[in-house]
Amino acid sequence: MSKGVTPKSENYSKWYTDVITKAELADYGPVKGTMIIRPYGFQIWENIKNIFDQEFKKTGHTNAYFPLFIPKSYLNKEADHIEGFAKECAIVTHTRLKADEDGKLIPDPESKLEEEVIVRPTSETIIWSMYKKWIKSHRDLPILINQWANVVRWEMRTRLFLRTSEFLWQEGHTAHANKQEAIDETLKILNIYQNVIEKSMGIPVITGKKSESEKFAGAEDTYTMEAMMGDKKALQAGTSHYLGTNFSKAFDVKFQDTDNTEKYVYATSWGVSTRLIGALIMVHGDDKGLRLPPNIAPIQIVIIPIYKTGEDLKKITDYISPIIKECSNNNISYYLDNRDKMSPGFKFNEWEMKGVPLRIEVGLRDVENKKIVMARRDTSQKDIFNYENIFTKITESLKSIQSNLYQQALDFRESNIYNVDDYELFKEIVNNKGGFIKCAWDGDSITENAIKKETNATIRCITNEIANNDTPCIYSKKPAKFEVIFSKAY
Amino acid sequence: MSKGVTPKSENYSKWYTDVITKAELADYGPVKGTMIIRPYGFQIWENIKNIFDQEFKKTGHTNAYFPLFIPKSYLNKEADHIEGFAKECAIVTHTRLKADEDGKLIPDPESKLEEEVIVRPTSETIIWSMYKKWIKSHRDLPILINQWANVVRWEMRTRLFLRTSEFLWQEGHTAHANKQEAIDETLKILNIYQNVIEKSMGIPVITGKKSESEKFAGAEDTYTMEAMMGDKKALQAGTSHYLGTNFSKAFDVKFQDTDNTEKYVYATSWGVSTRLIGALIMVHGDDKGLRLPPNIAPIQIVIIPIYKTGEDLKKITDYISPIIKECSNNNISYYLDNRDKMSPGFKFNEWEMKGVPLRIEVGLRDVENKKIVMARRDTSQKDIFNYENIFTKITESLKSIQSNLYQQALDFRESNIYNVDDYELFKEIVNNKGGFIKCAWDGDSITENAIKKETNATIRCITNEIANNDTPCIYSKKPAKFEVIFSKAY
Repeated sequence: MSKGVTPKSENYSKWYTDVITKAELADYGPVKGTMIIRPYGFQIWENIKNIFDQEFKKTGHTNAYFPLFIPKSYLNKEADHIEGFAKECAIVTHTRLKADEDGKLIPDPESKLEEEVIVRPTSETIIWSMYKKWIKSHRDLPILINQWANVVRWEMRTRLFLRTSEFLWQEGHTAHANKQEAIDETLKILNIYQNVIEKSMGIPVITGKKSESEKFAGAEDTYTMEAMMGDKKALQAGTSHYLGTNFSKAFDVKFQDTDNTEKYVYATSWGVSTRLIGALIMVHGDDKGLRLPPNIAPIQIVIIPIYKTGEDLKKITDYISPIIKECSNNNISYYLDNRDKMSPGFKFNEWEMKGVPLRIEVGLRDVENKKIVMARRDTSQKDIFNYENIFTKITESLKSIQSNLYQQALDFRESNIYNVDDYELFKEIVNNKGGFIKCAWDGDSITENAIKKETNATIRCITNEIANNDTPCIYSKKPAKFEVIFSKAY
Repeated sequence: MSKGVTPKSENYSKWYTDVITKAELADYGPVKGTMIIRPYGFQIWENIKNIFDQEFKKTGHTNAYFPLFIPKSYLNKEADHIEGFAKECAIVTHTRLKADEDGKLIPDPESKLEEEVIVRPTSETIIWSMYKKWIKSHRDLPILINQWANVVRWEMRTRLFLRTSEFLWQEGHTAHANKQEAIDETLKILNIYQNVIEKSMGIPVITGKKSESEKFAGAEDTYTMEAMMGDKKALQAGTSHYLGTNFSKAFDVKFQDTDNTEKYVYATSWGVSTRLIGALIMVHGDDKGLRLPPNIAPIQIVIIPIYKTGEDLKKITDYISPIIKECSNNNISYYLDNRDKMSPGFKFNEWEMKGVPLRIEVGLRDVENKKIVMARRDTSQKDIFNYENIFTKITESLKSIQSNLYQQALDFRESNIYNVDDYELFKEIVNNKGGFIKCAWDGDSITENAIKKETNATIRCITNEIANNDTPCIYSKKPAKFEVIFSKAY
C-alpha cells in the first residue's frame, strides 16, 4: 500500500493495473479472464448502481430476473445476434462430476445434456421467449423491465473492469406497441445514462449513433456514449439500442392492437456495466492513484488525527466529534482513521490512492488554535480553516471537487478533439498524438474498414448527418453523409 | 387473473403454483428447473434484500463480488464439500459455438477447455483461494464479506422458489483470528436472520443446530432456522455455518498472529435465498391468494375509486389526493388503481391475489358523507372510517396487519407442534396429522436414518442438549442426548 504506482506517462497500462491493485478495487480470478470486485471497488459499483436504479424506477421501469442459462437453439433465432455472440460463449454440456478410475474428477458422461445450454452473453433471446408468453394485447404494453445481472462473454484478451469474461451490468428490455414509442424510449435511456455519467461520475461523453458495422448484433440502431480516457483513447461507456421488430419477429411476439389487428411488438434494449469503473479510473486517476467524484465516492471525507499519546487522541476526537456528527446527519460519508501504529504519511498515501475527495488532518495545535486543516484530492490544495465554519467548507469543497473533476475531464477532451479534413493529418494524429478526430465520412463500410485497417481507428459515433453534397469524405473524397468521431478505442 | 386459485385444502401443491402464477410472481424458464422472477415477485425480493443488506452493513459487513466460474480442481480441495456438490453442478466445457456440416450449431471442439469450469453452487472454494492471497497478518482480520449472487445446483425435481437449478441468494464469508470470534459471528448472523424473518416477513422460526448428517458439506456446525408451512411441513429458511479451519486448511490460509506464530484462519459462511419468497407464500397465503406483511409489500395500500363517469372520477380523485400525499410523505407505498373498463370486483380480486395489505374503496357517496371504506387483506374485515382520521387508521392498520400475520403463523405452528415420547404416536402424527414433533434422540445417525426411512421425517434441528441420563431416545430407547424437532420438509 505504501509504494506508489507506475507513473501514467511511463506506462499507462501498468499505471491502470497498479491503481486497481493498490486501491484494492479488484483482483484476478483463477479462471482466465474472470475478476473479483473487492469491497472498495464494489462500494463504488453499488453507488453507481443505486443512482441508475433510481432513475430507471422514476421513469416507470421495474426490475426482474431472467435465467442465466439459455437453450442453445435460442441464440440461433436472430441471425445477426448469433453471429455476434457464438464465438465467445460459455457452453454447459454436463451436470454432474464423477471420479474416474484414477480418482480424478471428470464430467459424468451420463449427465451429458441433450441440448447444450449457453451462459447468457446478453438476455434478448430468453426475455423475448417470455414476452411471447406475456404479451397478448395492447393492454400488456409497454413492458419496461430492467435486470441487474452477471453476463459472460469468453474474451481472449482481458483487462480488469474493461474486458472480462464475466461482468456485472444492467440490461433493460422494453416492449412497445409502436415504433415511435420504442425510439423515444431508446433516447430517453440514452439521456438518463448521459446525465448520471456526467453529473454523478464526472465523465463527459459524446453521444450519437453507431455505424452499421459497430452496432449491436440484432439492433436497428445503436446509440452510444463515448468517453475520452487519460491516454486519449475512446471508451464506449454504455449503449441504448432500438431493436425494431427484429426480436419480436424472431420469437413471433404479436399483440392485438386497439384496432383489433395483430401487430409485431417494437423493442429496445440498453446496458451499462462495471466497465464504467474502468472509465472512472482512467478519466480521473493520477500518479497518486484514484480520484473519486464525491457523488459516487464510498468515503467522501477521511479524518486523520495526528497524535502521539492516547490523551492527545482523546482531545482530538472530542474536538472533531461535532464535525463527524454533522457529516453523519447530512449523509456525508466519512471515515475516522484512528488506526494505531501507522504514520500520518502512510495514511495520507493510502487514502490518496483510494481517491477519497477530502482529507481533514487534526493535530493538538489545531485544537488549541481552533483550526482545521483540509486537503483536496483533486487539486492537492491544502487549507487551514476556522473551526466554526468547517462544515460549510466541507460541503462547498465536495461540490467544487465534483464540478472540477468534470471540468478537468471536459477540458482534456476538448483539447484533444481535432476537426480534420485531410487524411494525412488524420493518420498523423492517430499515430502520434492520439485523441478524437471529427471528420466527414461517406457512410460506406468499405471506407470505414479501410481506415480501420490502416490506422486502427474506428468510428466511435455519428455526431451529425451532412445534408449538402459539398463535403468530401476524409478518405474516399466522395460526398460525405455523416460527421463522425474516429478514435482508437478500448 | 379473474379466476381464483385451487383451494389449499384440495391440492396444496397446485394452490402454491397457482398463487405464484396468478399473482405474477414467477414463471418457468425454458431450461429445465430455471425460473423467471417477474417484476412483482422481484420487488418483494428487493424489499427483503434491502432489509438484510442494511443489517449486514450495520454490523460491519461489506459486499463484494467473486466470479461465477470455479476451476474444477477447487471443488476437490475440501472432501465433504465435493461430496455435497459434485452430483448437481453445471459444467462448462467449451467456449465457442460453430456450425457443423449441416449448419447445426455445435460446441466447437477446438474451444474445449483444458480444465473444465464449474458454475458456482456456493463460493467457499473460490473465496478461500482469494483469502489465501489477501490474508497475511492478524491486521488483515477479520474479513467480513457478503455477496449477492446467483448460484446453480442442477436439481432433478424442481419447484418455483423452493428448489430451482439457479437461484438468487446472499452468501456471507468471514475470516477470523480465533475460534470464539467465528462462533460469535455465526450466531450473530443467525440472530439477524431470525429478526428479519420474524419482524419483517412475519414468519416465526425455530433455531438450532443441524445434526451431522443434515449439516452443510464442509461445516463444523450448521445453525438453521426452520419455519412451518401452511401444510405443516418444515422449510429451512436459512443457515449460518461455523466452518472451523476446514477451508483455511484446504486452501492453506494462515496468518501471523500478535504472538508472531502462524495460525490457521477460522471461518463462517451463511446464506438466505429467494426460497424465502416460497416460505412467504406458504406461511401467509390463503384461498384468495397471497397475503403480504406490510413491511415487505411492494404496494402497502391500493386505492380503488368506484365511478361511472369521468366527472365522478375527478371528484373522487380530488377527495383522496390529500390521503395519497400523506402516504407519499410517510413512505407508505400506494397504488391508485384508476384503470378504465375494469369492474371494481375484478380489481378487488386482483389485489387480493397479489396480497396487498390494505384496500381503500371510494365512491361518490363516500365523498358526500366524508367517509372512507377500508378493507384488510389479513382478516377480510371491511370498515367505514371518517375522512379526517383516515391516515391514522391506515398506519394503525398496517402495524396491526404486520403483527397479526405473525401471530396467526405462530398460533398455527404452536398448535401443530407435539411433544412426543412414544414412537407409535410419532408415526401416527407424521403419517396422518403432520406438524413438528419434539422428541428425544440418542444422537446416533443410525437412529436418525432409521426414522427417516420409516417415516420420511428428518431432524430439522436440535433444540436442546439433554444432560441427564434418564430420558430415553424415542426410537432406540437408549439414553437421549438431544431434544430435536422432526418433521417432513421441503
